[in-house]
Amino acid sequence: MSETKAKAGLQDIVAGESSICLVDGKQGRLVYHGYDINDLVGKASFEEVIYLLWHGKLPNQSELNELDAELKKNREIPADVMALIQGLVNNPANPSGMEVLRTVASYAGAVDADKSMNRDTHLKQSAKLVSLMASATAAYGRLKAGKDYVAPRTDLGHAANFLYMLNGQEADELAVEAFDVALILHADHEFNASTFTARCTVATLSDVYSGVTSAIGALKGPLHGGANEDVLRMLMKIDSVEGAEAGIKDLLANGVKVPGFGHRVYRSYDPRGLVLKRYAKDLTAKKGNTKWYEMTEIAERVVLEYFAAKGKDLKYNVDLYSGSLYNAMDIPVELFTPLFVMSRVSGWTAHILEQYANNRIIRPVADYVGPVDLKFVPISERA
Amino acid sequence: MSETKAKAGLQDIVAGESSICLVDGKQGRLVYHGYDINDLVGKASFEEVIYLLWHGKLPNQSELNELDAELKKNREIPADVMALIQGLVNNPANPSGMEVLRTVASYAGAVDADKSMNRDTHLKQSAKLVSLMASATAAYGRLKAGKDYVAPRTDLGHAANFLYMLNGQEADELAVEAFDVALILHADHEFNASTFTARCTVATLSDVYSGVTSAIGALKGPLHGGANEDVLRMLMKIDSVEGAEAGIKDLLANGVKVPGFGHRVYRSYDPRGLVLKRYAKDLTAKKGNTKWYEMTEIAERVVLEYFAAKGKDLKYNVDLYSGSLYNAMDIPVELFTPLFVMSRVSGWTAHILEQYANNRIIRPVADYVGPVDLKFVPISERA
Ligand SMILES: CC(C)(COP(=O)(O)OP(=O)(O)OC[C@H]1O[C@@H](n2cnc3c(N)ncnc32)[C@H](O)[C@@H]1OP(=O)(O)O)[C@@H](O)C(=O)NCCC(=O)NCCS
Ligand SMILES: CC(C)(COP(=O)(O)OP(=O)(O)OC[C@H]1O[C@@H](n2cnc3c(N)ncnc32)[C@H](O)[C@@H]1OP(=O)(O)O)[C@@H](O)C(=O)NCCC(=O)NCCS
Repeated sequence: MSETKAKAGLQDIVAGESSICLVDGKQGRLVYHGYDINDLVGKASFEEVIYLLWHGKLPNQSELNELDAELKKNREIPADVMALIQGLVNNPANPSGMEVLRTVASYAGAVDADKSMNRDTHLKQSAKLVSLMASATAAYGRLKAGKDYVAPRTDLGHAANFLYMLNGQEADELAVEAFDVALILHADHEFNASTFTARCTVATLSDVYSGVTSAIGALKGPLHGGANEDVLRMLMKIDSVEGAEAGIKDLLANGVKVPGFGHRVYRSYDPRGLVLKRYAKDLTAKKGNTKWYEMTEIAERVVLEYFAAKGKDLKYNVDLYSGSLYNAMDIPVELFTPLFVMSRVSGWTAHILEQYANNRIIRPVADYVGPVDLKFVPISERA
Repeated sequence: MSETKAKAGLQDIVAGESSICLVDGKQGRLVYHGYDINDLVGKASFEEVIYLLWHGKLPNQSELNELDAELKKNREIPADVMALIQGLVNNPANPSGMEVLRTVASYAGAVDADKSMNRDTHLKQSAKLVSLMASATAAYGRLKAGKDYVAPRTDLGHAANFLYMLNGQEADELAVEAFDVALILHADHEFNASTFTARCTVATLSDVYSGVTSAIGALKGPLHGGANEDVLRMLMKIDSVEGAEAGIKDLLANGVKVPGFGHRVYRSYDPRGLVLKRYAKDLTAKKGNTKWYEMTEIAERVVLEYFAAKGKDLKYNVDLYSGSLYNAMDIPVELFTPLFVMSRVSGWTAHILEQYANNRIIRPVADYVGPVDLKFVPISERA
C-alpha cells in the first residue's frame, strides 16, 4: 500500500476515466464526446447536447422527440414543490436561489416514489431534474420579484420556455439563441468541482438526486458557480465605463481574486468565454445597452495586462462575459448561478450515469499532521 | 503540468493534510486528535468528543458547559422544519430517513439568516446541525411509527435526550452509555467518502449546510452509511440462529458483498467494531434478546473464514455489530443510517472548518477516453 501525495486541491490528479467531455487546457479546446463545442454552437440545441452527454451520441429526430417529450412532461412544478419555493421566498432569512434549488432537488428526490437503481430510472430522474431546475429557477425569479408564477408552455424549446416563464413573454430570436448557446457552453466541464462532488456522492451508490443536490451545494461557492454573479456585482459597484479601468486596477492592487479570470485547467483561452463574448457583444448592441459589455471588455484588458506583467498564463474564463449577456436578457443577477445549475445539471447527471456504470467508492486518505499518544485527562483536571 | 494517474476510487491518494483523526489501517487503531478511541470510550461524553474534533483539544468544564448550552438551545425543532418533516413522512413516496435529513439540512441552511462566512458563524451552524440532526431523526422515527412527536429535554445529555425523544421514556443507564459510545465511535473517520464529499463541496467556499447536505447524500449509499441497515436486514431475512451459517454461506457463494465486512483502509480489525461488539453482547444479554447478536457472531466467523481461505486481509467493520446493539435500544432499522448522520455530522463539520482554514478548490482531472474530432452532422442526416 504505497501512498501518493497529491498537490493541494487534487491538482493534476487523474481521478478516473471519462468519455463525456475533453477539456484541453493547453489548446483551449472543449469537446463534448467527440464534438468541438464550436461545432455544436448555433447548430445543435441544448436538448441535443443533453442527449449527447447522456447517450454518447447525437440523437436522430425520433430520439430527440422522445427526450423532448420527457422534458416537457416535467416542466410543470408540482403543488408541494411550489409551496416549498413560495415558503422559502417569503422567509425572512432571504434564501438565495442556490439554497432554494438545493432544497428543491433534495425534496424532489424524497418525494419520488421510484427508488430503484437502474439506468432507465436514472435517465428519467435526470430528465426530471433538468426540467425542474429550469422551472424552479424561473418560479423563484418571479416570486422573488413579487410577480406571479408563469406556467410553462410545451410549444417552446427548453431555452425559450425558460425565458418565457421568467419574463412572462416570449423572448426575441437572438436572445433565445444566445441563451440556448449559454446552456450548451455550461453543460459540462469534465471533473470540475461540482461534478466531482456529484461523483463522490453517488460512488457510495447513493441516488441521482443526492448527487445533484451535492453538486448544487458545491456550485454555490464563489470559487465556482458564484463567480458569474460576482462579475456583474463587481461591475455594478464601479458602475461607469469611465471608472472601469481604475476600479479594476484598484481590486488587483488590493490582491483581490478578480471573478471571471483564472482556471485550474485552462492555461490558454477558455473557449466558452470567446463564444459568450461574441453573443454578449451582439445582444447588448441589439438591446442598445452596452454599458456592462464595455466595462467587461475593459476588465478583460486590464486584468490580462496585469497577469502578463506577472508572467502568469491566466486568461478570462466562462464567467466573465455571461454577466452582460444575461443582463441583456433581463435576467437579474441573483439568478446567474441558478442558470448555471439549469445547464450543468445535464453534465452532472451524465457523470452520475457514467459513475454508476463503472463504480468504486471514492475514498482518498489524509496525511495526518495532528498529535498522537496524548494521555487522556479527566475533565476535572483539564486546564 | 505532469499528471498522476490515481487508482480507482482515489485509493491511496493523499488528498490533503488533516489533524482531526488518524486511521491506522495496519494496526487497527483510530485516534481523534491525539486520543486513542479506546481512551475516550466510557470516559468522555460525545459532547466532549465534538469539542475535541472542532477545537483540537478536550474541553475543560466551562468550555463544555458552553458547548452544551449551545447544543441544548438548538434541540427544539422549528415549526416550519417540523411541517416539512411531517409532510415528507405523510408523502406516499415514503421518503427514507436519509432523504428527510438531507432535505432538512438543506432547508435549515436556506432559512438561516446568518449567511456570513467566518469561524464563529460556522461553529454556531455546526452546533445547530448536530442538534437538529438528532431531533429530526427522533421526530422522523416517531411520526413514521404513527406516534406523536416528543419534545426534547434540556436536563439530559445528547445521547439520553435522543433516546428519550425517540422512545418517549428515559432509557436505562447501560443503553445510554452504549449509545453515547456508538456516537463517539462514528464521529469521525478521516477522509471517508461522505467527509471527503463535504470537503469537496465547501472547497468552492460554499457554506456549512451545503457541505453537510452533500455528506448526508453520500452517506446514504449502501457502500457507506447504508451498510449498517443492510446488516440487520440481512439477518432479518435469514431470521434464525440455526439458519445463519447456511444463509451467510449462500450469500458468499452468490458473490454478494456482505454488509459489515471490508474496508478501504483497515486491513486489520476495525477498532470501532471491537468496542461495539462488546456493548452489543452486554446490552442484548441484559435485554434478554440475544438472537441478532448470536447471528452476527456466526456471520463474523463464517465470513472471516471465507476471506481467510481466499487469502484476503479483510475483517468486519463498524457496521457489523451496531445492528444488534441499536435493536436492543428499540431503535428501528430504518433509523440506523440517520443515527450515523447524528454522529458523523460532528466529524463532517470538523473537516469543513479545517477545509476553510486552509482552502483550495478540489478539482482533479479526468482521463478522457472518448472520441475526438467527430464531424458534426445535422439532425436530419443522423441514422
Ligand atoms: C478558478 C480558480 C478558483 C482556480 O483556482 P486554482 O486553480 O486554485 O488557482 P490559484 O488560486 O492557485 O491561482 C494561481 C495563481 O493565479 C492567481 N490568480 C488566479 N485567479 C486569479 C484571479 N481571478 N485574479 C487574480 N489573480 C488570480 C492566484 O492568486 C495565484 O497566484 P500566486 O501563484 O501568486 O499565488 C481561481 O482562478 C479563482 O478564484 N478565480 C476567480 C473566481 C472565478 O472566476 N471562478 C470561476 C471559474 S470557472
Ligand atoms: C467497504 C467497501 C465499500 C470497501 O470497498 P473497496 O475499498 O473498494 O474494496 P473492494 O470492493 O475493492 O474489495 C476488495 C476485495 O474484497 C472483496 N470484498 C470487499 N468487501 C467485501 C464484502 N463485504 N463481502 C465480500 N467480499 C468483499 C471484494 O469483492 C474484492 O475482491 P476482489 O479483489 O476479488 O474483487 C467494501 O468492502 C464493501 O462494499 N463492504 C460492504 C459494505 C460495508 O460494510 N460498508 C461499510 C464500510 S464502513
